[in-house]
Amino acid sequence: MLQQLNKEVLLKRREALEQVIKRRFIYQPAFSLYGGVAGLYDYGPVGCAIKTNIEQYWREHFIIEEDLFEIAATILTPEPVLKASGHVDRFTDLLVCDSKTGTGYRADKIVTETLENRIAKEGDKLAADVKARYLAVIKDVDTFKEDKMKEIIAELQIKALETGNDLTDPTPFNLMLPTIVGPSTKLPAFLRPETAQGMFLNFARLLEQNGGRVPFGAAQIGLGFRNEIAPRGGLLRCREFQMAEIEYFVDPTEKSTFKKFNKYINLEIPLLSRQLQAEAKQHQPFKMGDAVKDGIINNETLAYFMCRTYLYLVEIGINPVNIRFRQHQADEMAHYSSDCWDAEIEMSSGWVECVGLADRSAYDLNAHSTATGQKLQAARKFKVPQPRQVLQVILDKQKIGKELKKDGMALIKYVEALPDDEKQELSEYFQTHEDKVFNIDGKDLTLNRQLVKFEQKTMNVMEEKFIPHVIEPAFGIGRILQAIIEHSFNQRDDPQKTFFKFSPRVAPVKCSILSVVQSEEFDVVIQELTSSLKKLGISCKTDNAGVALGKKYARTDEIGIPFAITVDKETLTAQSVTLREIETTKQVRVPIVEVPRLILELSAGLILWTDVLTKYPLFAAKEEDA
Amino acid sequence: MLQQLNKEVLLKRREALEQVIKRRFIYQPAFSLYGGVAGLYDYGPVGCAIKTNIEQYWREHFIIEEDLFEIAATILTPEPVLKASGHVDRFTDLLVCDSKTGTGYRADKIVTETLENRIAKEGDKLAADVKARYLAVIKDVDTFKEDKMKEIIAELQIKALETGNDLTDPTPFNLMLPTIVGPSTKLPAFLRPETAQGMFLNFARLLEQNGGRVPFGAAQIGLGFRNEIAPRGGLLRCREFQMAEIEYFVDPTEKSTFKKFNKYINLEIPLLSRQLQAEAKQHQPFKMGDAVKDGIINNETLAYFMCRTYLYLVEIGINPVNIRFRQHQADEMAHYSSDCWDAEIEMSSGWVECVGLADRSAYDLNAHSTATGQKLQAARKFKVPQPRQVLQVILDKQKIGKELKKDGMALIKYVEALPDDEKQELSEYFQTHEDKVFNIDGKDLTLNRQLVKFEQKTMNVMEEKFIPHVIEPAFGIGRILQAIIEHSFNQRDDPQKTFFKFSPRVAPVKCSILSVVQSEEFDVVIQELTSSLKKLGISCKTDNAGVALGKKYARTDEIGIPFAITVDKETLTAQSVTLREIETTKQVRVPIVEVPRLILELSAGLILWTDVLTKYPLFAAKEEDA
Repeated sequence: MLQQLNKEVLLKRREALEQVIKRRFIYQPAFSLYGGVAGLYDYGPVGCAIKTNIEQYWREHFIIEEDLFEIAATILTPEPVLKASGHVDRFTDLLVCDSKTGTGYRADKIVTETLENRIAKEGDKLAADVKARYLAVIKDVDTFKEDKMKEIIAELQIKALETGNDLTDPTPFNLMLPTIVGPSTKLPAFLRPETAQGMFLNFARLLEQNGGRVPFGAAQIGLGFRNEIAPRGGLLRCREFQMAEIEYFVDPTEKSTFKKFNKYINLEIPLLSRQLQAEAKQHQPFKMGDAVKDGIINNETLAYFMCRTYLYLVEIGINPVNIRFRQHQADEMAHYSSDCWDAEIEMSSGWVECVGLADRSAYDLNAHSTATGQKLQAARKFKVPQPRQVLQVILDKQKIGKELKKDGMALIKYVEALPDDEKQELSEYFQTHEDKVFNIDGKDLTLNRQLVKFEQKTMNVMEEKFIPHVIEPAFGIGRILQAIIEHSFNQRDDPQKTFFKFSPRVAPVKCSILSVVQSEEFDVVIQELTSSLKKLGISCKTDNAGVALGKKYARTDEIGIPFAITVDKETLTAQSVTLREIETTKQVRVPIVEVPRLILELSAGLILWTDVLTKYPLFAAKEEDA
Repeated sequence: MLQQLNKEVLLKRREALEQVIKRRFIYQPAFSLYGGVAGLYDYGPVGCAIKTNIEQYWREHFIIEEDLFEIAATILTPEPVLKASGHVDRFTDLLVCDSKTGTGYRADKIVTETLENRIAKEGDKLAADVKARYLAVIKDVDTFKEDKMKEIIAELQIKALETGNDLTDPTPFNLMLPTIVGPSTKLPAFLRPETAQGMFLNFARLLEQNGGRVPFGAAQIGLGFRNEIAPRGGLLRCREFQMAEIEYFVDPTEKSTFKKFNKYINLEIPLLSRQLQAEAKQHQPFKMGDAVKDGIINNETLAYFMCRTYLYLVEIGINPVNIRFRQHQADEMAHYSSDCWDAEIEMSSGWVECVGLADRSAYDLNAHSTATGQKLQAARKFKVPQPRQVLQVILDKQKIGKELKKDGMALIKYVEALPDDEKQELSEYFQTHEDKVFNIDGKDLTLNRQLVKFEQKTMNVMEEKFIPHVIEPAFGIGRILQAIIEHSFNQRDDPQKTFFKFSPRVAPVKCSILSVVQSEEFDVVIQELTSSLKKLGISCKTDNAGVALGKKYARTDEIGIPFAITVDKETLTAQSVTLREIETTKQVRVPIVEVPRLILELSAGLILWTDVLTKYPLFAAKEEDA
């Protein structure tokens, strides 16, 4: 039975974990030599290897499994793109500054922190209604707009934290990092706030690669940037962060059914639906098939990716009972979104959003179409002709021919060939305009409204154009890594002896190769074994120092190396070594020649440790010395 | 015998290749919807997968093999770091602008292009001495400083290319992209121009992970940015580019010997040494052991990484006879560098620098030490005590005790414990100063020069401190990818039938699964096979469309899928499929159950196609239909 690692348990371990993170350089603040920069972290060898492994498994689990198109678009993004996407105008936080020193604060954070401090400090002395008011503000403060925030700051007398000075009025601060490209064009640009836009901009190219058919998905693993006002919270809120995003393009008329969802209808996942939140209830497990049938989740495509996300998180080592999917409130979602769920993971700091799954509808493709005049559409093809209301343009060909002579034919041909939506636009245009000028082959030709009539007609068509909708699962790699580290961290009976119980495919190094004592004979075996492991691309760490074996185990345990191979006297006579698993510390005896393949298959998740236990004889180790 | 793919051959293929790159979206200009931005490219699914694969193999070949510490440092880099590294002052190109329109040009490029145009246009009419003068300028123009460039532009009457207007005076333009971090601190920062600095800044942390010992290496795969003045040349000169860099830290007294170099002393690699260049000769193969012994390559550590680089390039599919290592001229190297070689690859645009291998000496660690006051050193430990000249500080303890009372002891203890280099600094300080104030435990204590004497003494020491030197192999991933694509591109007898002969580990998709004709029975087999391949993490593409098999092969050939599995009638009765290799188009018949493992081992380079041919019966295919 799985234990929930509740916040208290995780908090208790947190201090010991922080020490290991620092001592073994899993990750650390960047630029410490220069005094550091808030919100920037460097991943050390252990953190970096885990990051690479969870990205690589993300590729297998999503990209290979769903045949997604992985792309690598640029971080540098010209301003017009982010103007069209809405980021230039709306990707902001409210900023207030110390009116004397200029120190900046995120408005919602300083209000929350001030009120929480007052509640903690004044305790029972605080009047019940005041406390209730504070709690109500804390709950909603991140939704306040400028005016409301200004009111609250005045009303509740919020001041600069360090100095007590007055705060400036809240103003929206754009969270994108700006730059300028090129010396002469001086193109204003930003570092991308998400990888998504690169996939929307390449939609037409990818559609072509898919033979013009939807559904298909694009995926991207890469960095995003957010100029946080005052970042805190370690890897959970960085100014530069690794993301893995999918944009799954679907026909809106088809998104409610997703064939592969069938295999997950009985999968139970903890959901915190909009309704449960309204009733102030906890999350509870739902059968995913029922959740869609009962209208809790909007459509099967979204639900399918929620299932796949859940399975991914569990497979890489997140404790399943510390995962829940929280549905966004109607007022929390972007206006274009029809449903949105966050995969939240419980950590020492509480429930943290690690994956966002949103139905972005046709918003982004529409926005870039409008901005560029390029149609970002797909076609729905029918096996049998379908009756559709089609707007027909009826031109007075005779008069046009008379007026425009031979240009008349060009104009007629052009207008009759207009796509349906442009015919619609033309009919609307003529409701308020007299003439429409078309530029055809470089010539301006004028059509007068008197020469054209529009008629709705039912016709049988073989295809129709549409703008695909987008289901977007967006993963924050740093946050997931932080969760894995917290959930995998363990202490043995001696709390100084810590270890990480990583899933072998996530483990930063797959095995260690140790010797019971320092000896040249053993060194030869270690080198040969190391070399055959490396040939298979398996990362390993050797330790043939002259220290006690128990100490060597402790060192490899501390960074979560799942398997330890030990070379001993018997190795020289029987050509076998012992293989130890980190969590159970159980050992088996294995012929040397079989070791590399065994580690390869264990690391790739093709076999489990329990399989190894049934195949090889248990080795009764002498008690590990300290 | 390997054929050299000389520039002419590559140029001839280039047009057909460009069409495939566009049609199959291997990579394409970024932001085309918005008119595009020079120097920015997006990798499509094929390009992105190749990029991922060559990075992954780089990890195996370098990081796992050499036990390097891979880290992931940030792209955002505060200004003081890049001031210390020299980039703020010296990472520049000379910029000239059209004096009327403001269009910017890189000075060396506009001079070169103008003179080349004149030579091409005037041909034989150009006087021999003028032509010689032009060629001499073209050869050296990229080394000219501001004044010299200004002279040349005036003398040779270089004007703006499009307008013929005068050019502004050449001024250094910094190639780093600037940004500002945070709203209140407004920290000036840049996007990193190389990944190297992140490794230098983490030197002390990594040294600790290595138990305080050198040599060890750090590695990083990530993006670098360069605000090119007017980028052209596709993936070869981008403003945002993927790099893979190693900083290998060595004891300078030990870098001339590198144990593992022994296995490569007989490896022959084409070198274009400084001397061969001086004699205007071509590159020629050298035994690497001899090249070091004869002083052509400065040390074994550098030579070892040249060998590993060469082997890496060949393994991922670069034609070995199109690789050479060109040594930098003395005046071409950074002043701190003792030797520097570029791995150049011949492409349709000529020889292109793809990997730089430099001995950076102690320059960077020194620079950051000086800027931050933090010592970035390692210790050399001796097995037996070594005699060393040590500066001894002799204090007049009595007088100090009298003057400072109990603080005197603290001062004496502190000064005697100063590290050697600080004793040296103190002795120099007292040559021009009377008093030195030490802050000890928060108290300012003053030492007068009269109370201290310095004496050089030979002592036996067990260790000494030193600043490690750095050997840096730096790979440009985009350039290498471009080279692989050019070298792998092939046309069959019908030049429309193109294919890429990728090494299986580099191939973007490992196998295709096709059916001879469209059939539901075949579909079931294809789905089962696909699912077992995906479980092993193998990327595959199915094609069960109702088109001729030859057409399906052509489609998978065009993106370089090395192996094609075909399901036919016999599959249903004999549970076997055919397996086809892309270059030879030979096919064998393989039991279905053995296919997934076979593809896995072929893709990982564990077995070769020739092994498959000996194990399975050849299948005589009917002629592929078009």
